[in-house]
Amino acid sequence: MSRITARKRVTRITVATSRSVRDDLLAVEEPLEIRVGGNSLAITMRTPGNDVDLAAGFLVSEGVIARGDDFAAARYCAGATDEGLNTYNVLDVTLAAGVPAPDPSLERAFYTTSSCGLCGKASIDAVRTTSQHAVQHDDLVLDPGLLATFPDRLREAQDVFEKTGGLHAAALFDGRTGRMLVLREDVGRHNAVDKVVGWAVKEGRLPLSGTVLMVSGRASFELTQKASMAGIPVLAAVSAPSSLAVDLAKEVGITIVGFLRGQSMVVYSRPERIVEPARTAEPQRETVSAP
Amino acid sequence: MSRITARKRVTRITVATSRSVRDDLLAVEEPLEIRVGGNSLAITMRTPGNDVDLAAGFLVSEGVIARGDDFAAARYCAGATDEGLNTYNVLDVTLAAGVPAPDPSLERAFYTTSSCGLCGKASIDAVRTTSQHAVQHDDLVLDPGLLATFPDRLREAQDVFEKTGGLHAAALFDGRTGRMLVLREDVGRHNAVDKVVGWAVKEGRLPLSGTVLMVSGRASFELTQKASMAGIPVLAAVSAPSSLAVDLAKEVGITIVGFLRGQSMVVYSRPERIVEPARTAEPQRETVSAP
Repeated sequence: MSRITARKRVTRITVATSRSVRDDLLAVEEPLEIRVGGNSLAITMRTPGNDVDLAAGFLVSEGVIARGDDFAAARYCAGATDEGLNTYNVLDVTLAAGVPAPDPSLERAFYTTSSCGLCGKASIDAVRTTSQHAVQHDDLVLDPGLLATFPDRLREAQDVFEKTGGLHAAALFDGRTGRMLVLREDVGRHNAVDKVVGWAVKEGRLPLSGTVLMVSGRASFELTQKASMAGIPVLAAVSAPSSLAVDLAKEVGITIVGFLRGQSMVVYSRPERIVEPARTAEPQRETVSAP
Repeated sequence: MSRITARKRVTRITVATSRSVRDDLLAVEEPLEIRVGGNSLAITMRTPGNDVDLAAGFLVSEGVIARGDDFAAARYCAGATDEGLNTYNVLDVTLAAGVPAPDPSLERAFYTTSSCGLCGKASIDAVRTTSQHAVQHDDLVLDPGLLATFPDRLREAQDVFEKTGGLHAAALFDGRTGRMLVLREDVGRHNAVDKVVGWAVKEGRLPLSGTVLMVSGRASFELTQKASMAGIPVLAAVSAPSSLAVDLAKEVGITIVGFLRGQSMVVYSRPERIVEPARTAEPQRETVSAP
């Protein structure tokens, strides 16, 4: 039994036909507490595995670190269960010398304005002014035919999903060669993206210029924020983005692609990055239809 | 233009075929800050609408209130944008006299143990000891044929999804008659459930005995926690649950149904609540197959 899947006894029912009891595999969900320098920063429900990456990616998303050198070490806290075991659910991160420790009220600090005027614009400004990696001028040009292959390759590469049907996936692709650099799965969609970004932290690859972040679900504001903080120029999703995700993407210069299914896709921001190879040699021919 | 959908200019690309620019509707996502007695408690990214329900349901989920009488009033804070407008994104809740204000570090208080031994068991204990509504002895018996109609009825009733493809849905059904009591949609799956529970708070219906909570995605620990805190005996999902969701459901006595598609379903806990009408009169005939 791994820490990623768990076997449970279930009852399968087909109406008016059959009822059977068997064992089934489920995705594991466990809390992870992320500490920095011994101080608790956040608790997230995640699928165990790649926890150091998850912590590193989370710290990038929240603006605490911006590159691999900022992250010195991480260790699981020694266990303090009744049996004295390590639960491997509490991770303490040590930042590099000179990197300021985060505000303990970090989540609120990121979004809250001093006034009562909290709004989408303020949330966008918070990300825009916090990110150290500008993607505005990333000159990636992406072949839509190549991009259209990403969803199937994401699904094929998913290990746990096939067994449990219960995990979100996020993968990073090289936008020019189409090579998949890393794929992570988690019960939480944000966690899957944090694990991908944390992998890049560890590899010293931040900012992630020229890459595409592909996610299995929708493109929310928070996923767009994570792309911005990691310097990823293209966010591609199987489903739709939210309006605020698109507003943020336009503001910071990220290309959002949604409904990436089969041979078609919808581009919500910076569409000039998605160009078929034959089209690069000649002027763009676009048809504009009425709303 | 409503506050729920926003119109954006998009580029549709079909590989090697066409490229067109048109306007498209997206689901709106905006921050909502929930305050209690003037103190900030949480910020969530949500689809505007039913915000008072969202706040009330959130307070039930977190154990701050347990019934309609605990909730006195809610008002949007007067605007403090540069233009002096109300953004309708900050909601201040007044609790009824005698209801204790929540711990400002509420999220952590719910999950963190005093020691380093944070684990799934501790998370389950936190919910078990906090919920005021026992579902363990809820005597609902549910016809699987009726249950199998819920996903299609959820989809049919979704307003915004058809237009934007970007929203999660949650609905509450009467488990005996199959009547849909309420449906809510949101960019955040937890928000959709909070809005459903908050509707029930307002209607004075807590605890929600004899009901089924149907969600459009997966059944996570947090959704199961929300069902437990509201006294809902059955949680049904289109996709899979996590292992910790099932562990919690078994501990508090909730029936979790997953992969509810067409005429089939998988029951992960308390399967004795799901019984075809003909079967109630005779002993259960179950086949047990090897794992």
